Amino acid sequence: MTQYKIPVLPGDGIGPEILAEGRKVIDAAGERFGFDVEWIEYPHGADHYLETGELISEETLKELSGYPAIYLGSIGDPRIAPGVLEKGILLTARFYFDQYINLRPIKLLEGVWTPIKDKTSKDIDFVVVRENTEDFYVGIGGRAKKGESKDLLEVKRTLYSAKFGLDIETDSEEIGYQIGLISKEGTKRVIEYAFDLAEKQKKHVSSVDKANVLSDIYGLWREEFSTVAEKHPGVTTDFNFVDAITMWFVKNPEWFDVVVTPNMFGDIITDLGAMIQGGLGLAPGGNINPNGTSMFEPIHGSAPKYKGLNKVNPIATIWAGAMLIEQLGEKEAADNIVSAIQRNIQDKKVKTYDMGGKSSTSDVGDDIARIIKGE
Amino acid sequence: MTQYKIPVLPGDGIGPEILAEGRKVIDAAGERFGFDVEWIEYPHGADHYLETGELISEETLKELSGYPAIYLGSIGDPRIAPGVLEKGILLTARFYFDQYINLRPIKLLEGVWTPIKDKTSKDIDFVVVRENTEDFYVGIGGRAKKGESKDLLEVKRTLYSAKFGLDIETDSEEIGYQIGLISKEGTKRVIEYAFDLAEKQKKHVSSVDKANVLSDIYGLWREEFSTVAEKHPGVTTDFNFVDAITMWFVKNPEWFDVVVTPNMFGDIITDLGAMIQGGLGLAPGGNINPNGTSMFEPIHGSAPKYKGLNKVNPIATIWAGAMLIEQLGEKEAADNIVSAIQRNIQDKKVKTYDMGGKSSTSDVGDDIARIIKGE
Ligand SMILES: CC(C)[C@H](C(=O)O)[C@@H](O)C(=O)O
Ligand SMILES: CC(C)[C@H](C(=O)O)[C@@H](O)C(=O)O
Repeated sequence: MTQYKIPVLPGDGIGPEILAEGRKVIDAAGERFGFDVEWIEYPHGADHYLETGELISEETLKELSGYPAIYLGSIGDPRIAPGVLEKGILLTARFYFDQYINLRPIKLLEGVWTPIKDKTSKDIDFVVVRENTEDFYVGIGGRAKKGESKDLLEVKRTLYSAKFGLDIETDSEEIGYQIGLISKEGTKRVIEYAFDLAEKQKKHVSSVDKANVLSDIYGLWREEFSTVAEKHPGVTTDFNFVDAITMWFVKNPEWFDVVVTPNMFGDIITDLGAMIQGGLGLAPGGNINPNGTSMFEPIHGSAPKYKGLNKVNPIATIWAGAMLIEQLGEKEAADNIVSAIQRNIQDKKVKTYDMGGKSSTSDVGDDIARIIKGE
Repeated sequence: MTQYKIPVLPGDGIGPEILAEGRKVIDAAGERFGFDVEWIEYPHGADHYLETGELISEETLKELSGYPAIYLGSIGDPRIAPGVLEKGILLTARFYFDQYINLRPIKLLEGVWTPIKDKTSKDIDFVVVRENTEDFYVGIGGRAKKGESKDLLEVKRTLYSAKFGLDIETDSEEIGYQIGLISKEGTKRVIEYAFDLAEKQKKHVSSVDKANVLSDIYGLWREEFSTVAEKHPGVTTDFNFVDAITMWFVKNPEWFDVVVTPNMFGDIITDLGAMIQGGLGLAPGGNINPNGTSMFEPIHGSAPKYKGLNKVNPIATIWAGAMLIEQLGEKEAADNIVSAIQRNIQDKKVKTYDMGGKSSTSDVGDDIARIIKGE
């Protein structure tokens, strides 16, 4: 019997409830497919932070880096300012483990309601490969009051004036600024991953950028995309401005196979993607470092107002669990979990409120586990 | 008879065709409502650039600044690298004239097909107020090769290492970076505009940001939003992360009244908005400086492959024309143009291919002009 050790970070809000169902389902798959999981629990999240002042320590991160895959619930709590936990735990992990791929399948399972007209599960079936360690997520930025940071105000003045030799704007009382950056290597590796994936699928890669306005950062992205594309003559490609691709997600999702995108635009379009595949309750994601520690999570947040109600949909988390064990090499079990999710949905009996049902979080986990075990 | 002088920049691709219809309709409205327009044509765009090397000169901009409103077709040409014309003409104008409001109505006219299920023109009826002169549109950025720009590579190294005291990334071969900035004053004025608008409508303002990740720049945005909100106790508000709001646009567009957003996110969500209101052929926009020179345009691009075919939908441009004359003070005529557009659509006879019809661009312009003149 293969033995796995999987660290779990249930996190905040509904995190513990949904992750319990994810574990239940993986355990069931283990029973059937001959592997056993030891779950190693980590307390990180809002409560831990409020009690100890610690977000996540380097020691813990080092310890976690000994495992191939982490299972994450959700991070975020209304008692704490937006960003503190998300950056201090979630983004820290993505960066620390160099999980440069954020893999987000956009797949409308059969029997799921989509808000989009005239589209079926045949039409909505693609994958977004979101770069996950660069871009505007690098956390460089600041605020500057008048006089405080001459340099940046200078930048601003220069910008406006350079073009026309006149001062349109005077110094501001205060500015906020943010710097995004991408590297050639960081861009190349994620685009290569996307092309390798497309080679196994429908052989089409769509790039997302806004190179017509943010030309410096995304000019480099386009160049790398073109360079990688040349090495894959059998794969067709297109460039999409991020504004336009939101339209095509809604109007023509069937155009897509693999969509590769810089980090921030990836954040935006995968939420839209989640909606067209039936809502956040159904959208899993994997933060992947193919040679290191990966981390799997539902892409939704911690939904504080549902905390403890045993009400929300655990399918996104269960699906993320399937991606996790696939990463561990348990492809057959992973496929079986996805089939069981599909069966649960098509049976139409055990479903949570967001899918028009009245079942609880744990009912859905039980049902999917039952299907897997063939009971 | 009131006399107006309106500069027109037909621009590239389908620009001249659609703008001809926009002019036709404004002329018709003038006949009926007692004003007369002298159209002053400007040649700027791809051809002019290729012939003369000039995008738009400061002299021309100064001249244009003598008028309250400019009528723009569309800018962009495949012969020229993405961004050159858009930045050199469109964004230059927005910045030069300090058109700090980009007003984009998201309104599903009756009889228009939306890709969204179960929503009618009652549900899709709100306005996006996009900040238009700051954020990541300021055009500050660059590229740096290894060794070339020690400073920025230093920034990158520091960023990764500061958190854990170790070097996760080594120097990159090359990086691309982009800086966004917003000012207190620039943020305040557009948010105030949004609240003033909401006071006249359904008294709700939704803010868009990504303050949980891009905390420096959008932290300032949130602060200003809260400060302005305090002065409008009768207006309800909510904060939306940009990723999440793309979901609500599709799932619950009826929630919105006035949405106020930083520039780049505004670019993205208004294309999505255009799609839910029936497509780019139906989405107008105004770049507004309430005390200076404004500029009205369809929000779509120059659609080069349709150039000269007399095929595309002129309604976005005609609607933008209505916004233009409203800005000039011709409210009744403006409302009448919008009603005439609505009539044309409900008649279902004269419509372009994107709306399932076979009529030409000029047929639609003729029909709307005819309705206005009561012929
Ligand atoms: C919670 C937040 C920091 C995160 C992100 O912006 O990446 C989330 O929206 C996501 O998409 O995983
Ligand atoms: C053409 C482009 C520069 C422009 C923008 O990004 O603002 C367009 O997409 C728009 O929304 O008006």
